[in-house]
Amino acid sequence: MISLDNKRLVELKKEVFEANMALPEAGLVKLTWGNVSVIDRLLGVIVIKPSGVAYDKMKVEDMVVANLAGIPIETNGLTPSSDLLTHTTLYQAFPNIGAVVHTHSKWAVAWAQAKRDIPAYGTTHADTFYGRVPCTRELTDSEVSADYERETGNVIVSTFTERRLDPEATPGVIVSSHGPFTWGKTAKQAVEHSLILDEVADMAFVSEQLAHNLSSIPSFLLNKHYYRKHGENAYYGQK
Amino acid sequence: MISLDNKRLVELKKEVFEANMALPEAGLVKLTWGNVSVIDRLLGVIVIKPSGVAYDKMKVEDMVVANLAGIPIETNGLTPSSDLLTHTTLYQAFPNIGAVVHTHSKWAVAWAQAKRDIPAYGTTHADTFYGRVPCTRELTDSEVSADYERETGNVIVSTFTERRLDPEATPGVIVSSHGPFTWGKTAKQAVEHSLILDEVADMAFVSEQLAHNLSSIPSFLLNKHYYRKHGENAYYGQK
Amino acid sequence: MISLDNKRLVELKKEVFEANMALPEAGLVKLTWGNVSVIDRLLGVIVIKPSGVAYDKMKVEDMVVANLAGIPIETNGLTPSSDLLTHTTLYQAFPNIGAVVHTHSKWAVAWAQAKRDIPAYGTTHADTFYGRVPCTRELTDSEVSADYERETGNVIVSTFTERRLDPEATPGVIVSSHGPFTWGKTAKQAVEHSLILDEVADMAFVSEQLAHNLSSIPSFLLNKHYYRKHGENAYYGQK
Amino acid sequence: MISLDNKRLVELKKEVFEANMALPEAGLVKLTWGNVSVIDRLLGVIVIKPSGVAYDKMKVEDMVVANLAGIPIETNGLTPSSDLLTHTTLYQAFPNIGAVVHTHSKWAVAWAQAKRDIPAYGTTHADTFYGRVPCTRELTDSEVSADYERETGNVIVSTFTERRLDPEATPGVIVSSHGPFTWGKTAKQAVEHSLILDEVADMAFVSEQLAHNLSSIPSFLLNKHYYRKHGENAYYGQK
Repeated sequence: MISLDNKRLVELKKEVFEANMALPEAGLVKLTWGNVSVIDRLLGVIVIKPSGVAYDKMKVEDMVVANLAGIPIETNGLTPSSDLLTHTTLYQAFPNIGAVVHTHSKWAVAWAQAKRDIPAYGTTHADTFYGRVPCTRELTDSEVSADYERETGNVIVSTFTERRLDPEATPGVIVSSHGPFTWGKTAKQAVEHSLILDEVADMAFVSEQLAHNLSSIPSFLLNKHYYRKHGENAYYGQK
Repeated sequence: MISLDNKRLVELKKEVFEANMALPEAGLVKLTWGNVSVIDRLLGVIVIKPSGVAYDKMKVEDMVVANLAGIPIETNGLTPSSDLLTHTTLYQAFPNIGAVVHTHSKWAVAWAQAKRDIPAYGTTHADTFYGRVPCTRELTDSEVSADYERETGNVIVSTFTERRLDPEATPGVIVSSHGPFTWGKTAKQAVEHSLILDEVADMAFVSEQLAHNLSSIPSFLLNKHYYRKHGENAYYGQK
Repeated sequence: MISLDNKRLVELKKEVFEANMALPEAGLVKLTWGNVSVIDRLLGVIVIKPSGVAYDKMKVEDMVVANLAGIPIETNGLTPSSDLLTHTTLYQAFPNIGAVVHTHSKWAVAWAQAKRDIPAYGTTHADTFYGRVPCTRELTDSEVSADYERETGNVIVSTFTERRLDPEATPGVIVSSHGPFTWGKTAKQAVEHSLILDEVADMAFVSEQLAHNLSSIPSFLLNKHYYRKHGENAYYGQK
Repeated sequence: MISLDNKRLVELKKEVFEANMALPEAGLVKLTWGNVSVIDRLLGVIVIKPSGVAYDKMKVEDMVVANLAGIPIETNGLTPSSDLLTHTTLYQAFPNIGAVVHTHSKWAVAWAQAKRDIPAYGTTHADTFYGRVPCTRELTDSEVSADYERETGNVIVSTFTERRLDPEATPGVIVSSHGPFTWGKTAKQAVEHSLILDEVADMAFVSEQLAHNLSSIPSFLLNKHYYRKHGENAYYGQK
């Protein structure tokens, strides 16, 4: 037993549990194909879904607590999600994010399998993602063999570094041949970003079928929609 | 507090509330991506959804009352939908409409992103839209920067003016790179037009994939179906 | 009041009502876009859905009784479906059918708008439709103007006559630029045929996208699947 | 009445019943288009769904018991699924499988009608299927005429033999012009494989539309994902 504030841990487990349960409800996850984690940077803990547990059997207390290095410290006897080290890598590199979501949602996976960025074709996209959603390069044989889940995190981080992307303005990515990861301030927001990513992936697919050589929306419209919702001059929503 | 007939305002708020709630139920809206307003031209008021409020939290009394210039006059402490000035512009230009609906429904957005009118390929379309559903031109940088929501209304209106379209016979439009707006006599009818627009957008997409160089339906069939349902010789439905 | 066996009429109305209600439940009908009728050839009556009545308001007693010429004889004050004369024409030409269904289901409409027969690409199709589902020619201007609904029936019938199709072996059709009609022994079976038609229309669309110049299934496989379910040597299902 | 352990038979019937009921719930089966069986190799019995019985009428005791040659031995008066001999053939050839599922799920059928293997384009696929899901050759006229259902099993088995595929590593197949069969240790697992097969068929379709000349995932990634979940070094899920 560790000396953590137990009440706070229960809160975190509840947040992670509810966000995980929201995924199949939103049609983003089938079977056990998804996971959500949150981080409490003060406590130095991450709480994440256990690996491969059916959603209809899962309970709040099954959420696994790990330290920032990915070592489980409170487990209820369960193994954490096998993607835990991808999550820890993202938390380390992106200091302002509070939650990470991974799914195999259909449309985002389809783009990942096509190894293509998702272009910003409209305002639905621009409201949440400031420009295209990047698709990482493929992992190499040695990356996959050595430390697969951590390297998955690394390839995401290096995609953001190399392209000079701000993870707050682009709160998601698709990993080549694999699928989407999204993040946010809270688990709820990270789940919303997963939902939006899948929706814009779907719309972008149809738009491309309807018109060839489609170009991305102009930067002034991208700016308008993104900053209507984000930053100090935002005026969408309630104060 | 203003001296409006309170009972009538409650009726209007209820109408707007119910129409807003119908949108996610019909699969036309995810998260907070939609808004409905109604106008009472005698009272000189518009009632519209508040901005960015979750559907499962929204109450009848949260509907915001504004005057025809878009100035909120009864708000329950809430900001009106950020698209309010698009709605007021439409009400001003189209004197016979009583309600406006905006969504980011998938199929209509996909055509908007492809920057294409939706052709009238069949009777499902012709039953409601007398000819193609127009896609506006793109807004310019200065239009977006200056007064974005009002200019969105203006580009819709000028599309109808330039193409000599009757907003009663074509009760909807798609705004380039953005998405659909529809209207009707009542909020319920405007919502139905949103649903129909998305459905015919879907069907038209599939038809184009099935047959290249498809032509629109002949005008005699368009006329037959439209006037079977509309105007003094209509014989569809009950008296 | 006419001297019909009232108990039998109530049975027929119930059959028609339930079949109509099954359409939106199966996702085949939105709003009021569909209708089912049944015929009792001994009594000389057709019972059909009223025109344009919302499904959630519709009651058993609203089903309209008409004679074989399409003249309403018991109406509960309601107008019958505007497509009634299409139904009467089909009943007259196809003496072995007991029920007719019309919908604007998405995939069947998409093929109708593409003005293409739906090829028999697999056993799902062959289990119910003995060969391609025909798409009629387009109606002419004078046919549409003169007696539109009856001519819609006529063009279906002439499609079957000209192509020497057996309406029992091909229990459905798509009308060019319009949508599907199906039929069966009972209302329930006719509704099932609508569902199957839409499903095979969907599958055929995807198959064509996956492989160009796809050919229909060989006749020995078509025969096997069709006759496994139909005729005196059928062995699918229970006796 | 036969001298089988009745309690064990009831267990098997319950397993088959529940797995059958899971198919329409998962959207994999419409009407009566599917069947599940399990085998008890010690008892020498197969339990399978009755033929053409509506899901909402079906009861546990309607599940038909047959011997390994496909001869019904406890039937509750019902005929077994017409596909029984396909199931027996698979059980005979694949000694480690405990359950078989057949559906006409949309996406898998679409690939079967296109007569194409489903390529392994991503990790969603690789988590369950170790490489492409094979599509059989078409059956010949004489195979269809002589002993159709058994020959369907035979063409599946010869596909696995000729391509040197391990039925445990590739727990499913699509039969040309027909549809998918999957298998597993238990009925529940075989149903999951049906669901996964349809999902990866859907994703692969979209990916191909998004990028031409797409190649399968590299073997090191295929190996990683497959063996993360299967075999003695698996680390996905709970022990």
